[in-house]
Amino acid sequence: MNKLSIAPPLGRMDLLTMAEASQLVKSANGHLAPLLRDCALAVLSCGSHADDANDLLASNQNFKLEVVGNGPLISFLLTSPPPQAFVDGEIIEGIREHLYAVLRDIIYVSDKLTHWRTRGDSASDITFRILRNTKLLDEQPSSPLAVCWGGHAISEHEYDYTKEVGYQLGLRGFDICTGCGTGAMKGPMKGAAIAHAKQRRRLSRYIGISEPGIIAAESPNAIVNNLVVMPDIEKRLESFVRLAHGIVVFPGGVGTAEEVLYLLCILLNEKNRDQLPPVLLTGPESARAYFESLEHFIVDALGEKAKSYYKLIIGDPAAAVRYLAQNVIENPRPFNWDIEIQKELQIEFYPSHDNVAKLKLSRSLTTAQLAINLRQVFSAIVAGNVKPSVIRSIQSNGRFKIHGDADIMMSLDTLLAQFIKQGRMKVSGQYEPRYEIV
Amino acid sequence: MNKLSIAPPLGRMDLLTMAEASQLVKSANGHLAPLLRDCALAVLSCGSHADDANDLLASNQNFKLEVVGNGPLISFLLTSPPPQAFVDGEIIEGIREHLYAVLRDIIYVSDKLTHWRTRGDSASDITFRILRNTKLLDEQPSSPLAVCWGGHAISEHEYDYTKEVGYQLGLRGFDICTGCGTGAMKGPMKGAAIAHAKQRRRLSRYIGISEPGIIAAESPNAIVNNLVVMPDIEKRLESFVRLAHGIVVFPGGVGTAEEVLYLLCILLNEKNRDQLPPVLLTGPESARAYFESLEHFIVDALGEKAKSYYKLIIGDPAAAVRYLAQNVIENPRPFNWDIEIQKELQIEFYPSHDNVAKLKLSRSLTTAQLAINLRQVFSAIVAGNVKPSVIRSIQSNGRFKIHGDADIMMSLDTLLAQFIKQGRMKVSGQYEPRYEIV
Amino acid sequence: MNKLSIAPPLGRMDLLTMAEASQLVKSANGHLAPLLRDCALAVLSCGSHADDANDLLASNQNFKLEVVGNGPLISFLLTSPPPQAFVDGEIIEGIREHLYAVLRDIIYVSDKLTHWRTRGDSASDITFRILRNTKLLDEQPSSPLAVCWGGHAISEHEYDYTKEVGYQLGLRGFDICTGCGTGAMKGPMKGAAIAHAKQRRRLSRYIGISEPGIIAAESPNAIVNNLVVMPDIEKRLESFVRLAHGIVVFPGGVGTAEEVLYLLCILLNEKNRDQLPPVLLTGPESARAYFESLEHFIVDALGEKAKSYYKLIIGDPAAAVRYLAQNVIENPRPFNWDIEIQKELQIEFYPSHDNVAKLKLSRSLTTAQLAINLRQVFSAIVAGNVKPSVIRSIQSNGRFKIHGDADIMMSLDTLLAQFIKQGRMKVSGQYEPRYEIV
Amino acid sequence: MNKLSIAPPLGRMDLLTMAEASQLVKSANGHLAPLLRDCALAVLSCGSHADDANDLLASNQNFKLEVVGNGPLISFLLTSPPPQAFVDGEIIEGIREHLYAVLRDIIYVSDKLTHWRTRGDSASDITFRILRNTKLLDEQPSSPLAVCWGGHAISEHEYDYTKEVGYQLGLRGFDICTGCGTGAMKGPMKGAAIAHAKQRRRLSRYIGISEPGIIAAESPNAIVNNLVVMPDIEKRLESFVRLAHGIVVFPGGVGTAEEVLYLLCILLNEKNRDQLPPVLLTGPESARAYFESLEHFIVDALGEKAKSYYKLIIGDPAAAVRYLAQNVIENPRPFNWDIEIQKELQIEFYPSHDNVAKLKLSRSLTTAQLAINLRQVFSAIVAGNVKPSVIRSIQSNGRFKIHGDADIMMSLDTLLAQFIKQGRMKVSGQYEPRYEIV
Repeated sequence: MNKLSIAPPLGRMDLLTMAEASQLVKSANGHLAPLLRDCALAVLSCGSHADDANDLLASNQNFKLEVVGNGPLISFLLTSPPPQAFVDGEIIEGIREHLYAVLRDIIYVSDKLTHWRTRGDSASDITFRILRNTKLLDEQPSSPLAVCWGGHAISEHEYDYTKEVGYQLGLRGFDICTGCGTGAMKGPMKGAAIAHAKQRRRLSRYIGISEPGIIAAESPNAIVNNLVVMPDIEKRLESFVRLAHGIVVFPGGVGTAEEVLYLLCILLNEKNRDQLPPVLLTGPESARAYFESLEHFIVDALGEKAKSYYKLIIGDPAAAVRYLAQNVIENPRPFNWDIEIQKELQIEFYPSHDNVAKLKLSRSLTTAQLAINLRQVFSAIVAGNVKPSVIRSIQSNGRFKIHGDADIMMSLDTLLAQFIKQGRMKVSGQYEPRYEIV
Repeated sequence: MNKLSIAPPLGRMDLLTMAEASQLVKSANGHLAPLLRDCALAVLSCGSHADDANDLLASNQNFKLEVVGNGPLISFLLTSPPPQAFVDGEIIEGIREHLYAVLRDIIYVSDKLTHWRTRGDSASDITFRILRNTKLLDEQPSSPLAVCWGGHAISEHEYDYTKEVGYQLGLRGFDICTGCGTGAMKGPMKGAAIAHAKQRRRLSRYIGISEPGIIAAESPNAIVNNLVVMPDIEKRLESFVRLAHGIVVFPGGVGTAEEVLYLLCILLNEKNRDQLPPVLLTGPESARAYFESLEHFIVDALGEKAKSYYKLIIGDPAAAVRYLAQNVIENPRPFNWDIEIQKELQIEFYPSHDNVAKLKLSRSLTTAQLAINLRQVFSAIVAGNVKPSVIRSIQSNGRFKIHGDADIMMSLDTLLAQFIKQGRMKVSGQYEPRYEIV
Repeated sequence: MNKLSIAPPLGRMDLLTMAEASQLVKSANGHLAPLLRDCALAVLSCGSHADDANDLLASNQNFKLEVVGNGPLISFLLTSPPPQAFVDGEIIEGIREHLYAVLRDIIYVSDKLTHWRTRGDSASDITFRILRNTKLLDEQPSSPLAVCWGGHAISEHEYDYTKEVGYQLGLRGFDICTGCGTGAMKGPMKGAAIAHAKQRRRLSRYIGISEPGIIAAESPNAIVNNLVVMPDIEKRLESFVRLAHGIVVFPGGVGTAEEVLYLLCILLNEKNRDQLPPVLLTGPESARAYFESLEHFIVDALGEKAKSYYKLIIGDPAAAVRYLAQNVIENPRPFNWDIEIQKELQIEFYPSHDNVAKLKLSRSLTTAQLAINLRQVFSAIVAGNVKPSVIRSIQSNGRFKIHGDADIMMSLDTLLAQFIKQGRMKVSGQYEPRYEIV
Repeated sequence: MNKLSIAPPLGRMDLLTMAEASQLVKSANGHLAPLLRDCALAVLSCGSHADDANDLLASNQNFKLEVVGNGPLISFLLTSPPPQAFVDGEIIEGIREHLYAVLRDIIYVSDKLTHWRTRGDSASDITFRILRNTKLLDEQPSSPLAVCWGGHAISEHEYDYTKEVGYQLGLRGFDICTGCGTGAMKGPMKGAAIAHAKQRRRLSRYIGISEPGIIAAESPNAIVNNLVVMPDIEKRLESFVRLAHGIVVFPGGVGTAEEVLYLLCILLNEKNRDQLPPVLLTGPESARAYFESLEHFIVDALGEKAKSYYKLIIGDPAAAVRYLAQNVIENPRPFNWDIEIQKELQIEFYPSHDNVAKLKLSRSLTTAQLAINLRQVFSAIVAGNVKPSVIRSIQSNGRFKIHGDADIMMSLDTLLAQFIKQGRMKVSGQYEPRYEIV
């Protein structure tokens, strides 16, 4: 039986009070234990070639994790951990950091979230607290941060493009922040790392912002030197937006499209006019159709003007990054408090038939409000396509009924059909609409 | 009207949530405003030659302080501040740091203390939390910390001796921590600073731990580069003991003697046998009588063995420091959790007639318990000599009645008489005992 | 016409006297100009995919280089440089460093070499001076340095093996030093860079030691952050040996075999018994035949004992590196003066018929001396196979006549034949021996 | 017999070739041994209270110094060194640095000077080479350097003034460079050190530039963290001028006046109009007479315009330093090559009767040339007053004969008389002119 005790990295988890340490051990070994185990396993498997989360879990059934307290000191006790995380019995330092980042974020949030919500902290305050607790905000950023979004399952050709964009970003002094998985989340970091080495930058930040539901499925890649696990998708998105000094969107699937819509919701808010970082949509020629479908939908639904809030550059990484560099936010702050994010974007939208029926999709709304509602419809339809519980609900209760202008819905319909044709969505069998317009 | 806005030092007070910032502004301008103003004035007057706190306050009646919030950002607005804190309109960086340290500690503690106490946090946990919040514990100490105690009103000759000891400490790589005023609290830092320069140490720590009742009366000296304001005397003492890798006691008055008793209480606890840093009592020839009186009392009351818990070296700074260096705690930790500090030492002892009457001073107690009770009697007698409210209480209710062994009380009596003779206590008129033995 | 002025990196070339600067400009634009131009072109083409030096030169015929002086300040003026060295008109910092490293080493050596030789400086002193001038020796090494040798034209499979060994070296804290080209000189650096990132080491050294005849043919790879150009092959070899705290030999061709022989010459010297770093021969299964042929020859010629001076590990990168780590030189010094390197190894051996005829290959010699003579025969035979001038000389004057024991020569013959069979040597047509034994 | 071996500070003297090390040991133990011993003794006595060099030498007659080589490594072997340089048998790090600085400068210069002069290096190139060899020029200065001149034997009141000016300089971010002894050379460093601590500057430079004839008489003070020993007074003066971003002249004696004249020689050179740092003359009220006498002479001899090249501020340290800060050289370089220093200022003027007779002091000369000649006359007269050899020469050969305008000479005469009256010159008996005008 292979048991290993893993102490925290220097300067982490060693500043707890007795009470904090004992509470942490209790929480970590209590109801959070399964989540913690799976996240830890993902982190320890960094660089493995397991195809998906299920494989990973299946091939490590003997892996056990315990959090052990000794006065104010905390350590992990691992049973049968994946061997590639170790060198001659010593854990690789970066993996040790990720392991304790997972503990830090999951337990910290779990212990405090109810308290914060009870006393009425805003979602932005909570997002800030979690980021602050990671020490990510401690230092004034000396270089701008490019947040990169896009699909994790893109083609090798598109992956190479994201690497080249990362290389061009790195040459121009950008640090990189992504969602911390593979594909468009890994390529920019790899490219930037090579460029940073060539430019002799030694203190680059490669920030990965994950989420408990995602991290267990996708190991953070090895380059990430700041791993953050936000408690939900909404806070993860808010973190991206408030940390970014420039945003790059690579091709992806429906998720990526929904993220673009999220950005537009914020950009269309008049108060954010001078706050938001530049938004760049870019990919190789093979991604042209994807972005053009998306843009067509945006113009149809939100008007020609919506195009002016981002820049689309196809097939020219250097030109794309030059655009970003020229429009980057000056005097970067670690966390941009000045962006106003609408409440609807900060809370999870659950696509029940009721909730969907209440949404309005009418040109009588402000464009910003229409964008918000659209993102929710969008979210519902996507869920109807892929989430088992929502699929079941549709099977029982019939299609979603949406009250709205027909042309908007048709645009959305067209967009999804094109995504399927382009191979950007995985659907089995004949696609069948999940909604009807009332 | 001279108004100046003072932004926080880089990396301090700029990581607040909106809610925290607005709460802080409210607290700082509310019932804590007078305390904050007086502490800030002390800090801004660093290096001034005002004889005492009253002079300081008197000569700066126009000084006003406001804490101003702008979203999550906080700054001070000062009206008519003492000019010596500024260069060409810019505040001196070290004073800016002290100013924000005062804000940080007073407000942080004020906002949290009730909450902590309500939920039952231990005194040690609270002490740790306050120190952690100052970032003092963030880094593994690379050099041992000598905590220096002693009188603030010692003679120039004795002051020079504390400088020489500081010089010898600095030559041997010690950082310095004191109570942050003048006299024996300043000399060691000055001496160490010269030695550190000669030894080419650039990152030395000069830690000053003050208390709201003290800081307003005594400006922290300019050398202090880590100012901490603990909420009460007991947590200040506990901080000293848990941070120290070696303790130096210079001659002082009754207060210093009480501190030595505090140390003995801890040292006499069997469980602390291998935990405590070495304790050194030292001074020039002129201090021999002071230390001999003290030692005589200790042996009388607590037994010959109590002498073995400290080392007394007179008139030889190099030999004294060599003793400390040879016995210094190895592998220093930032905060020594393993010392057991008795509850009676963590809470304030209020010398009412009732409380004093309840104390037992009998050789039937364990030596450790006797030491604790003695420290409280000691504290009561001192208060009876100097604290107006206690003096009045004795005038109304008669002398304290102490139940105890007569010989112990006589020893204490002798000690105080000797201190008066040596000029170590300021009493006006004929000294008259404040107690009688029952 | 695209002209660019390139200032030196911060802290380089800006500390010249007026006289030095003007002499440097004169030298750089005088007889050294063609060499400097070609080396600079190689450095500027870093990362290009030109197949060989000729292609590189052919495709950059318009490239011109001038060194310009302005008082004590020096800069480059480039005409039509390869565009990939620049970002938005700014040169990539690492390439700027390489450019000035070339200038520094070539000009410095050229200006001083005659002077040093005239006054009788030893070869080791000269090697040291050149390395010292690069500032490579300035800091006490905090991590051990693995010197990696091997072929630049190995298969992709063997290249991946060198990367994996580099990764294992990097995980165990080794810095990397190679000959600065592709293949086995690039793989270990790439692997180590990934491992260093995972282990959070930020200040790793990737040292490339090149030579004017080599650098123009092979661009230093991008990872090299210390480029040194030694004036000849012998000083380059001596640098490797004196800098190394461990030596790794990957499969290569005849050149690699000659380097192993060079190491053995030094290892067989009794005085070096405790001085030399551990020597590891390693490769994947595909390299087993190569190393076994080499070992067979070594045992035949120099005796069974010669095997004990190195370790051969096939197909297990982790085990191989563990061996190196366990035997690494402790307390590493920046330059190991204590190794005794024989004079014959420090000067070039020119394979004239006369020089070869004078060599003795007899078991009556000490093994160390036999090894030295063998290396020279080896060098002559290789030259006879590949160097045009030597081939012509053999065509005119007949085969080399070697005075020696027949069995030694037969072993060598067998070795070369096996290398040809294994595809480790490029020969056209039927191989024909270049020597006969007298 | 107390013998101690002193290794070099980390990173110094450990990068020598075998040949360099053996040459250094030979030189250090050869004809330079007595000079090296006396300089080392001065450095080891740092902080001692010996009144003068003679006392120092007298009280350390048993002190012996040997330089020992071990391959390329060098160390000192000291017999009976002054004890205050050591802590528990370990040398104080700053003194170790000074000790090796002395070795470095004296031996380096001694070994190279003849070589440089033979090949015709300029005085500026040589000055630069010596400074470069100290690594003082290695880093781009991040803060301006104030060079402070003035007497070493000033009153305590004037010494306190230099401390206050140093404090004001330090508050405004200046580093300090002086001649490395006591009085006006120590005060500014002490004041600046306190201000730097208050401003939290950790990497301040306190540069002391000495000379072999001076250092043995005056221990470098403890604050100096860059000690340089220039080979002669002229190169020392040139170093000051080319390193300075601002120059402060405190009251002194004739030597200080001569230094002001040296500055004026450079300032009056049209080509230096925009090159020179601001020159500030300052002192307390007690120094007003000194500066007014000096200014009177300057105006008489060189015209009203000469006053415009410096600023005289009496009794207001803050205002004085504000002037310097407002006029400081921007974008400071480590060594200002652009100042043109006349040849006559770079070579020693020996005051033989012949040399003095050849000097012209006529208003027909350019003002710059007149200033140069005046400085030499000045130097001759001073020597005639104080240097034994020159006094004897005057006794044998009569007064110096000076060909010049009578009014200029009378002004000089007046100046010297006033200095005597002010107690700025030490003369015994009745002052008698050493010259006559022809």
